[in-house]
Amino acid sequence: MRVLGIDPGLRNMGWGVIDVDGSRLSHVANGICHSTGVDLGARLLSLHEQLTDIFHRYDPTAAAVEQTFVNKDGAGTLKLGQARGIALLVPAQYGLTVGEYAPNSVKKTVVGVGHAAKEQVAHMVKVQLPGVVLAGPDAADALAIAICHAHHARSGDMLARAVARAGA
Amino acid sequence: MRVLGIDPGLRNMGWGVIDVDGSRLSHVANGICHSTGVDLGARLLSLHEQLTDIFHRYDPTAAAVEQTFVNKDGAGTLKLGQARGIALLVPAQYGLTVGEYAPNSVKKTVVGVGHAAKEQVAHMVKVQLPGVVLAGPDAADALAIAICHAHHARSGDMLARAVARAGA
Repeated sequence: MRVLGIDPGLRNMGWGVIDVDGSRLSHVANGICHSTGVDLGARLLSLHEQLTDIFHRYDPTAAAVEQTFVNKDGAGTLKLGQARGIALLVPAQYGLTVGEYAPNSVKKTVVGVGHAAKEQVAHMVKVQLPGVVLAGPDAADALAIAICHAHHARSGDMLARAVARAGA
Repeated sequence: MRVLGIDPGLRNMGWGVIDVDGSRLSHVANGICHSTGVDLGARLLSLHEQLTDIFHRYDPTAAAVEQTFVNKDGAGTLKLGQARGIALLVPAQYGLTVGEYAPNSVKKTVVGVGHAAKEQVAHMVKVQLPGVVLAGPDAADALAIAICHAHHARSGDMLARAVARAGA
């Protein structure tokens, strides 16, 4: 399984790709998409093109996106939502179901506690993916999301959550 | 000029196409995209496919989207943001800059007052586009957005011409 993790944001969208072979994880690539363009449509288009290019280059077989905080201001939430729409669309265009994980769940899986600092997340990502060079904090978060998805996929939580969702 | 107006929503996305010839407006088509799919990615993909199909069928030369209220709950704003991301992406993929208009500005242009009821908007859309059969309130709103864009584009053109004349 090759997992693409995405940390959505309109200005900076972190991404990270890992290979998963049983319990063995290995780093493939990571980076940050920066949106460019004078208006919102152009910025979303640039994110769409960059994510599409990542799919072409790395051909992931699974994808996961961080569930977004919704307790910030409305304008910020709307911006994030628009970027998140693109982060969810591109995997769907490649036929992938996208795992969604709350930030606390990602931290708990990767660091062991739900309220870890960003530095701790980056540190544990480096421990679990030896030799990785991180493009930045957003890329570290994206790799953490990919690691979280790998753990959940292995433990069969995905099925349980799918059943729960279907029943909800 | 052929204008596509979009009233973004995750469940129901209203759309309407009008032709603009000077001050003359005429209705081309209107409808509502319903998102289908078990997960969010699939629902956004279905909206993307339906909007892309509308571009193929009607080939608009301008597009406008309603600016979204951001004073509702965070989860609702996030959902709307994700749908709005798709509504802004598709025109950008066809090289169009998207006009954005606040709901009050749309109502003021179409009805004459900023706090008009939905029924008034639908009524005035029917008055300005004789013979139109509305697919529903979201489609009426989308046509109102298209009409608003037509008015703004025309007054923008008039202003540009006046400036050019003054400078000549």
